[in-house]
Parts: sequence; structure tokens; C-alpha cells
Amino acid sequence: MVSAVDAAIAWRNDRIICIDQTVLPHEVRHMNITTVDELIDAIVRLAIRGAPMLGAAGALGVVLAAVQAERSGWSGERLRTEIDRIRQARPTAVNLEWGVKAVLPALSRGIVAAETTALETIERIGAANREIGNHGSAYLMTLRDGPLRVQTHCNTGALACVEWGTALGVIRSLHERDRLAHVIVNETRPLLQGSRLTCWELAQLGIEHQLVPDGAGPFVLAQGLVDAVVVGADRIAANGDVANKIGTYGLALAAHRERIPFLVAAPESTIDRATPTGASIPVERRSESEITHVAGYRVAPENTRALNFAFDITPWDLITAIVTERRIITDDLRGAASGTWGRRPA
Amino acid sequence: MVSAVDAAIAWRNDRIICIDQTVLPHEVRHMNITTVDELIDAIVRLAIRGAPMLGAAGALGVVLAAVQAERSGWSGERLRTEIDRIRQARPTAVNLEWGVKAVLPALSRGIVAAETTALETIERIGAANREIGNHGSAYLMTLRDGPLRVQTHCNTGALACVEWGTALGVIRSLHERDRLAHVIVNETRPLLQGSRLTCWELAQLGIEHQLVPDGAGPFVLAQGLVDAVVVGADRIAANGDVANKIGTYGLALAAHRERIPFLVAAPESTIDRATPTGASIPVERRSESEITHVAGYRVAPENTRALNFAFDITPWDLITAIVTERRIITDDLRGAASGTWGRRPA
Repeated sequence: MVSAVDAAIAWRNDRIICIDQTVLPHEVRHMNITTVDELIDAIVRLAIRGAPMLGAAGALGVVLAAVQAERSGWSGERLRTEIDRIRQARPTAVNLEWGVKAVLPALSRGIVAAETTALETIERIGAANREIGNHGSAYLMTLRDGPLRVQTHCNTGALACVEWGTALGVIRSLHERDRLAHVIVNETRPLLQGSRLTCWELAQLGIEHQLVPDGAGPFVLAQGLVDAVVVGADRIAANGDVANKIGTYGLALAAHRERIPFLVAAPESTIDRATPTGASIPVERRSESEITHVAGYRVAPENTRALNFAFDITPWDLITAIVTERRIITDDLRGAASGTWGRRPA
Repeated sequence: MVSAVDAAIAWRNDRIICIDQTVLPHEVRHMNITTVDELIDAIVRLAIRGAPMLGAAGALGVVLAAVQAERSGWSGERLRTEIDRIRQARPTAVNLEWGVKAVLPALSRGIVAAETTALETIERIGAANREIGNHGSAYLMTLRDGPLRVQTHCNTGALACVEWGTALGVIRSLHERDRLAHVIVNETRPLLQGSRLTCWELAQLGIEHQLVPDGAGPFVLAQGLVDAVVVGADRIAANGDVANKIGTYGLALAAHRERIPFLVAAPESTIDRATPTGASIPVERRSESEITHVAGYRVAPENTRALNFAFDITPWDLITAIVTERRIITDDLRGAASGTWGRRPA
């Protein structure tokens, strides 16, 4: 079955075509993005979201900006400013910047060269996801016989990652190898990416799943209902601390207490060696209305204020392994900046 | 200011008058409950909820059943069956049963005696709440100078507790003593008692507060934004393990890691010496639609299943203190059944 998910983002002539993730699961609506403003708006309101997908959007964004510059007669300086705006549209995920940087050098050779590089970059993101799935599923399969019950948070599937997925890619790979029992999905408030997007993708793939509120995640682990937790990452600091969707940290604490493997699945591009620890990762704060309202309906009293951190930081000592397209990191990453991996602290 | 909260439950002639907690914060609607069926329905759909409030409902429920028995010519056996139905309307909170048992012996002396005992019981619940507030606030004030930033989960105020509150009562007492900075409120999915009820009560009391999604609770603690966590309890096992609203356990894990005091505020009636540990507490599972829908709007895909534990269990080793109307328990409760308190495990 070729599902709608397989075409989560694409480049057509002069525009980005992608799924508007805000209206799922009720509607599969495709957007035509032809300007930098439209792209930034889509990124800010999370119509386009997910770390690897933001990498793809950054890569295609450079091409889009160049096409618009040509059409509108922008100066070189204006073009650079617009590309910078794309790069900075969201602060936490490092992949957006990575995608922009991957294509920018090619732009000096013209739009066609930039377009080719962007498409290659997206191809590379997809291939990396497949490898993450291979490595992560192989790692989990060594931990235990028989089918695994896996818990995940937020959405890290094709919608977030171009085509296969990172954490959800590991889950898909387990499913492909007939080693998946079922998936426990945290709903992921405030924007419910777990219930709206992950459950939708799993349903498309015919994978059995159960939805739980985020607050239930730790108890489900304590009840012995889960064999492994797999999540994605928006940025990984040089010491291995992981920024991921708000709600990840509590799940990691519970997995650690129960000695249940806690895997982070992410491409190498998510590792930011320039950020020494999680404490230096800028954590995006989003609109209060995401919490005071659900689907446009106000749930909190008028005047109640909310505190909306989009991400949290999971310290490295709670993480069993970070799985990338190249390796499985279970040692301390503190030596990463100098290229030598230290030992994991006892 | 006498707020609407002060009349959360009352007995008038032949009926229970109470606030329908399901339509808050948008509407303060009072219910007239005149039959056992109506009472059970109100308890099951959480129009009446909160551990001490369930104690009050159990106490008044015996009187209500007796009045209905007289009106309808029920046999003594039928009356006993109906009272049993009230007692078992929800499985986790032990207070419902406690309230029924507090009034049942008086019923042999007639309806007036039962009514008097029920009203005394409710009076006692209110007085106990005040004492819990006194003890809890005094304990927290010894831990630190100046105003405290307190985080709480679910709703434990007047709505849940007749008049003053347990955990929210501790917070009110701090506020009364001018030692409260502000309150961080977990929204408490699935039914949003935090955002709908606690924020509403705090707004009525003029107490500054900020709402966070449940998944953000642990990160808010890790960010150093909280001086103490105070929650209620639905049942406390003999060893000190606490059943409370789903989402409590993850918060306790985070507080423990950050060495932030984690208080459980509950009346003595919540302590169930017949239940040795948290593992023996029956945890209610509720309708999947509470998770797949928010305010009647479907957020998850059709056919997605959900797992809805209404409560979780927080092990005693994560709890700094249990505050009741009589004492502050920081030692191991394992000796409770024999009346001697053991030491807290290292």
C-alpha cells in the first residue's frame, strides 16, 4: 500500500508541495508553498514539523527563496536576509539550519545546482531514516526475544521525516521484521501530534496501537506494559543530552527507574557539537493558546495564563542509546567535540 | 468574597445540591439529586469527584437512599443493595466507602439520625481540610524562607473537598499566610480537572497561576521553577504508596531527581490499612472516549483505541511527606497496621 504519508514533502517546478499537518487526522490537505512568507508561516504554525522534515524544508527553502528572488528582482542581500529568516523560523531543532546550510553553497552555482543539491539532501534524509530504522530495530531485537511492545512520544514518522521516520521508523522496521507486538502512543499535548499524526500513520500502516495521555506514560511503564521506549530528537548536545518534544523527560525518568531501554532515534544532523550540554539548547516557548484551547475550544478559564515550552531536555544518563544512520551510541558523548568518545558515566 | 466554591455540596430537605463539575469553567450549574441512580450517575461521570467530596457524597448517599426507600416503599434488603451500589460507584477512592460506613450505623436509629451523622461527617471533612492546610503550609514554610512557588496536579480544592481543599487547601493556607508566590497547575488530561477546575478556583481566590500540559510538569521542575509539589490522594496504602490522578507519578519522579519536596495532602480517611501496598490498589479504567475526544471533539483517528487509567501509583520512596489533619508522616508507614510507624527506608 502506498499511503498518503509517502509524499509528505516534494518540490514541483517552482513550489513546495506538502501535507498540512494541522488538519490531520480529519483531512489530508496538500499545501502549495510559493513564497518564503508562506513557508515560514507553515513552519511556525507546525503545518510542517518534525526535525528531519524541517531539514528538508530548510533545503527546499533555499531553492524557493532563490526562485522568488529571481521572480521579484531581489538583491543578493535581500535573498540572504530571506534565507536567514527561514533558518531562524524555529529555534530548537538544529535540522532546519542544517538543511539551509546543506544547499546554500550550491546556490552560488545557480538555481538548478541548488535544486539538485536540495533534492539530493532530501534523498539523503530518507536514506538516513531507513538506516536508523535498521540499526534501531536490530539493537532492540538483541535485547529480547519475540514481539516487542514499544512506547513512543510525539510524531516521528513519515510526516516528520520525509518518508520513513526516525523513532517511528524503528517501529516500522520492527513491524517489517515481524517483531512488533503493538505501540503505545503518548497523545503529546498541547498539539496532540501523538493522537493526530502518529495514530494516523500507524493506522495507515495497519499497526496495532493504543493511545494514552502524556501523564499516563510513566505509569504504563511502571505497569510492565512496555518493552522499550523509542523517541526522536530535535537537537542532541555534544554531551548526549537530548531536546525533544515536551513530555519526553518524564518518560525517560520512568524508563530509567524500571530499567526499560530508552532509545533516541535521530539522524547525525541532529547532533550539534557546538552545543556543549542540554542547558545551552534554546527551548522554544510557544503561544499560551495552544494550552488554554483544544481544537479552537477554550478549556481553561478566561484570563488563566499558560507556560508553553515546546521541548524538554532529557539528560544523557537517562538514555540507553542514541541511534543514528551511522552508529549506536551508548558511550558518553562528552568527547564528541574532539572526535573521541568517552565512557558513559557509571 | 464568598465564592461559588464554598457551596460545592449540601443537603436540602430530601436532596443533594451540588455543582456539576463537568461544565466548569464555562458555567456554574447546580444539580438537584433526588435518587440513588442520579447520584451514581453524577459520581460515574465525574460531576461529583475528588476524594473528600466522594466521602461527603457517600455520607449523604446513605440518607438519600433512605429517603428514597421510604418514598418508594423499598424493603430493607433493597435499601442495602442500593447503598452498596453507591459505595461501589468508583473503585479507587477509598473515601466513598468511608463516607457510607460513617453514616450506615446511624441509619438503624432512623433517617433523622442518619441525616445528623451525615452532616457531622461533612463538617468533619471540612474541619480536617482546614487542619491539613495548616499542617501542610507550616511544614513547607519551615523548608524555605519567602514566598513559595508550588506545583499541583488535578483538582483538590473546595470542589473536590467540600469547602477548603487538601493539596489546594495547603496552597490556600500558604496564600492566607502571605507565603505563596504562585501556582503551576498541570492541566490533568484526559478530563482537564487542572485547567477547568483548579485554575477556576485559583482565579476565584485571586491566586496567580500558570497552566502547563502534564508532559511539561517534570521539565518545569527540572528548570528550577518550583519550590514544592503538593498533590492529593485517592487512596494511600498501608506502606505509604499513593494512588492519585494519572500523571502524579511522573511528577514525583522528577521532584525526587531534583530533590524538590513532594507532599501528599489527604485526610486520614484516605489511608487504607487493609491495602498493604500500591500494587493492591484497584486502578479504575475509564472510557476510551475521554482520550480520543476533547470537549466532544474527536482528536484521534476513527478506530484508534485508547488506554485510560484514571489513577497511577506513586511509590512511597518518592514522597517527602504525607500530610493529614492529624500528622505529618515522613517515616515509613509499613508499621501502620500494627499502630507503630517504622523508619523510612534509606
